[in-house]
Amino acid sequence: MSESDVIRFKQQAAERAVAFVSSGMTLGLGTGSTVRFALEAIARRLHQGDLERIEGVPTSIQTEHRARELGIPLITLNDRPMLDLTIDGADEVDDDLNLIKGGGGALLREKIVAQASSRNIIIVDHSKCSSRLGTHWPVPVEVHATAWKGETDFLASIGGRISMRMAPSGVPQKTDNGNVILDADFGPIANPHDLNHQLNNRAGIMAHGLFLWLAADVIVAGKDGIRHLTKNV
Amino acid sequence: MSESDVIRFKQQAAERAVAFVSSGMTLGLGTGSTVRFALEAIARRLHQGDLERIEGVPTSIQTEHRARELGIPLITLNDRPMLDLTIDGADEVDDDLNLIKGGGGALLREKIVAQASSRNIIIVDHSKCSSRLGTHWPVPVEVHATAWKGETDFLASIGGRISMRMAPSGVPQKTDNGNVILDADFGPIANPHDLNHQLNNRAGIMAHGLFLWLAADVIVAGKDGIRHLTKNV
Repeated sequence: MSESDVIRFKQQAAERAVAFVSSGMTLGLGTGSTVRFALEAIARRLHQGDLERIEGVPTSIQTEHRARELGIPLITLNDRPMLDLTIDGADEVDDDLNLIKGGGGALLREKIVAQASSRNIIIVDHSKCSSRLGTHWPVPVEVHATAWKGETDFLASIGGRISMRMAPSGVPQKTDNGNVILDADFGPIANPHDLNHQLNNRAGIMAHGLFLWLAADVIVAGKDGIRHLTKNV
Repeated sequence: MSESDVIRFKQQAAERAVAFVSSGMTLGLGTGSTVRFALEAIARRLHQGDLERIEGVPTSIQTEHRARELGIPLITLNDRPMLDLTIDGADEVDDDLNLIKGGGGALLREKIVAQASSRNIIIVDHSKCSSRLGTHWPVPVEVHATAWKGETDFLASIGGRISMRMAPSGVPQKTDNGNVILDADFGPIANPHDLNHQLNNRAGIMAHGLFLWLAADVIVAGKDGIRHLTKNV
């Protein structure tokens, strides 16, 4: 799969997701390279007059800047605590539509926005699909700066191989919230719900990249076309 | 119970707890008016030569300042991720030694330090004892600033009466971590473990004041003397 294929797949998935946006909606705006195509598609529909009265809540400073450049009206989650629809990417997606997210470092606000949304549509290229979460991607874990050593030891004690995410300058990368990110490679995760529970119980963990029960739809673009997966409920 | 009685009880509980400190220990240092007496007792034993090689991890900026004034050597949790003993206060204590904490606003770092400690000794005056948590005290909930409205709605949906904690100047009080605190009054809580689970699952909640399974000892001082409660395991 060439780089230009991947870009095309991301764009196709984004375009399909944005077809579900209708006028008057409040929208959660995810973060990452696939979402950038969704932002452009939303802006195009707005400028064409095909969409009106859209209000977006960005999940990162990066998305906020890009949405402003594109002229997408923005609000905060404190203005509108319930959103109609969120479009976001993912790093890994399993058959139950559970996700690993956080490769872009915006996991905390992404999860807040996902929990606030009536519907979450996830857009990916087909390389992100996996029968077991953890096979291709570590679980990003955002930890309080005072607790990184203790949480590293904790994550190692439950089977993770840990690396701290570094900025290009060689110091630990700080999130938008002033925390640091530990990438925890567990290999294929037998029971993501158990792991979710263990991570949620740790006081030093501010957020983690397991997004369970949140996605209603996953749109996957690949060389065989676009698949639209929906949650079996 | 007069104010001078309360002060005397706090001091008695603190003195009793500090008797469990021995030379060479790493200590978690809680936050609040009762802990201040413990800090003074630790400093007195250090200056008398009765204690040596103590290293303390403060749970708040306030405690850090007071410990420095008193000459207690300080380290960070990243220097020593496992602590021998933590001494801290509580706002409410039930018969199972479960706690509500966070009246002083330091709940996040207090819980990180409590989870990192081999033994947690809680010191209270007897007015803090209760057969059901929530009877006398709301549960402090530290929420991400972008999510206060949504988390207020969530907490109300599960039966809480919510007030945002305000600074004396009339604006929302920011924690040491830049978050805000919602005080959630649930009344007597039928099952604190269920509530703990619900709160841990919310992405916008950075910490909350239910401290379950953490206290090994609670020292209660009152007009009938000092009671030392220990966990039945």
